[in-house]
Amino acid sequence: MTEKKIVETLRGKRQSRPPVWFMRQAGRYLPEYRQVRARTDDFLSLCYNPRLAREVTMQPVRRFDLDAAILFSDILVIPDALGQAVRFEEGTGPVLEPLDEEAIDRLDASGMTMRLAPVFETVADIRAELDRSKTLLGFCGAPWTVATYMIGGRSSTDQAATKRFALEKPDAFNRLISVLVEASVDYLVAQLRAGADVVQVFESWAGNIDEEMFRAFVIAPNRRIVEGVRQSIAGAAMIGFPRGAGPHLISFAEKTGYDAIGLDQTVPLAFASTAFDATKPLQGNLDPMRLVVGGAQLDRRIDEIISAFSDRPHIFNLGHGIVPETPIEHVEQMVARVKGN
Amino acid sequence: MTEKKIVETLRGKRQSRPPVWFMRQAGRYLPEYRQVRARTDDFLSLCYNPRLAREVTMQPVRRFDLDAAILFSDILVIPDALGQAVRFEEGTGPVLEPLDEEAIDRLDASGMTMRLAPVFETVADIRAELDRSKTLLGFCGAPWTVATYMIGGRSSTDQAATKRFALEKPDAFNRLISVLVEASVDYLVAQLRAGADVVQVFESWAGNIDEEMFRAFVIAPNRRIVEGVRQSIAGAAMIGFPRGAGPHLISFAEKTGYDAIGLDQTVPLAFASTAFDATKPLQGNLDPMRLVVGGAQLDRRIDEIISAFSDRPHIFNLGHGIVPETPIEHVEQMVARVKGN
Repeated sequence: MTEKKIVETLRGKRQSRPPVWFMRQAGRYLPEYRQVRARTDDFLSLCYNPRLAREVTMQPVRRFDLDAAILFSDILVIPDALGQAVRFEEGTGPVLEPLDEEAIDRLDASGMTMRLAPVFETVADIRAELDRSKTLLGFCGAPWTVATYMIGGRSSTDQAATKRFALEKPDAFNRLISVLVEASVDYLVAQLRAGADVVQVFESWAGNIDEEMFRAFVIAPNRRIVEGVRQSIAGAAMIGFPRGAGPHLISFAEKTGYDAIGLDQTVPLAFASTAFDATKPLQGNLDPMRLVVGGAQLDRRIDEIISAFSDRPHIFNLGHGIVPETPIEHVEQMVARVKGN
Repeated sequence: MTEKKIVETLRGKRQSRPPVWFMRQAGRYLPEYRQVRARTDDFLSLCYNPRLAREVTMQPVRRFDLDAAILFSDILVIPDALGQAVRFEEGTGPVLEPLDEEAIDRLDASGMTMRLAPVFETVADIRAELDRSKTLLGFCGAPWTVATYMIGGRSSTDQAATKRFALEKPDAFNRLISVLVEASVDYLVAQLRAGADVVQVFESWAGNIDEEMFRAFVIAPNRRIVEGVRQSIAGAAMIGFPRGAGPHLISFAEKTGYDAIGLDQTVPLAFASTAFDATKPLQGNLDPMRLVVGGAQLDRRIDEIISAFSDRPHIFNLGHGIVPETPIEHVEQMVARVKGN
């Protein structure tokens, strides 16, 4: 068997059981990851180290025999490569010097390919090591989401600084979005050329803005990325994940052109089953907290998700990234349940 | 004119222009509020001081001639009155000693009426002072939202501790929800008897849980509150505000029985216009950040909201609470625009 189940699913093929991978599958809940991470100075240097990034990418695939590897990296390598320094502080997460209008115009994509060369090397190395039946996913953050860090300077649950900037300085903000669209297209194309089979675009902070901003800063840039990538690579397989998009979900799916839409855990199964076209590939959407807790509720919810999407192409996933306190046995339980073992 | 526009709207009557009030209208963006607040030791003592709570409740009504006053209080007076001490720390917000299973069983509603007596006195005093044409809103937090503070100990954007507790200890968690349902019913009934014309239930943290938890911990308790209040006061006018409910919004509306549903700013106008029954009263939903920024975009968005809901009973409001940095002139601009002045 050498076909890649996830690629086939994105092409519209229903599988006998949904292929499975999960967000942040290479991460802190794994002791072997923590061991590697302890040997590196900072988080970004791990992302830029092909040997170690490949190693942590492969760890969950080896341990759980998942259907996909996802490149170990971070959505903030793009601002970093555009010249806005990013550092990760223990307990705080990413910290950036917030951009003002002038700093937006100083962003410089000319060195991006060189700065991100280790990432493409990592992709090629993973693809060489990964079994041919398994899918390699590349990814990037969507422009609005990445902009919330670039303008806000750190993770923000209400994205207040960025919303305000976007409304007060629409021209400058649109320039930033355009820079990010172009950088994302180049970055994804390079990942695909280096060996990624599929790319996923993470719109992690789409859940707090009104429809006008959603259209301008979420839907339009995501569509431009899909179109841009496919101008370079016809038929490139792409997944969009607009976390928290709620009632915007259908219009996001219809207007962006992604092959599949990733669903967060808040999306009701019956809503997804009926609101999306019956042939639309969907990915998701187990609440990561159910994986932390485990037991009978976990099996029951996995069954409900699989059953709800049994008539369409479906990739099993969490609704958000796995959390560090997740017991590994619960991950084993989930993978076995999805695989019908 | 002595009819209360907001009460009439909740009864299904369209108005020549939507009545207007807004969440956190008594608050830190007002200099006269900051002056009163500076004279009180802590936030809860302001909530429990009838003279001062009435004063800050009336401030925005006097300044902007709004169509409603909303009782100045906090959703955490219920845990406080049940015996779980609440304190407000500068910069952090509310801090509680997180409940464990035993502490849930020690919660005691017997002293609640006495502890909250100053609130009911405040309600009566406001009603006596408020023009008869204006609506007085009482409120409480919905059980899930209040529980996230009681279990988590503070505001949590992912409600992880509470989700985990609910999944790991469902019996204890359901006992907590039941205590909160009963306390909320008693509290709202007492507010209505003291003179509130309408009550609003704030489900502020409904946007991160899956459908099974949403049904059990959001829809069911809200329905029990609506039924419980109306058992004591037939036809009590009630607004439900499930912030972030996204694709659950319609089932929330259909299953809870609130007269009106408050919409946060993420709800697209076209979605709301078509997904809700054409006669359903709706409230909302300007993004508070648009009010911070002001200018032409503010007028345009206000017009879009009013126009989208012009065929149904509509109460103009923000999609979330006003933020402290909001310029007062922008509030004046908004109120004038809504009133057609």
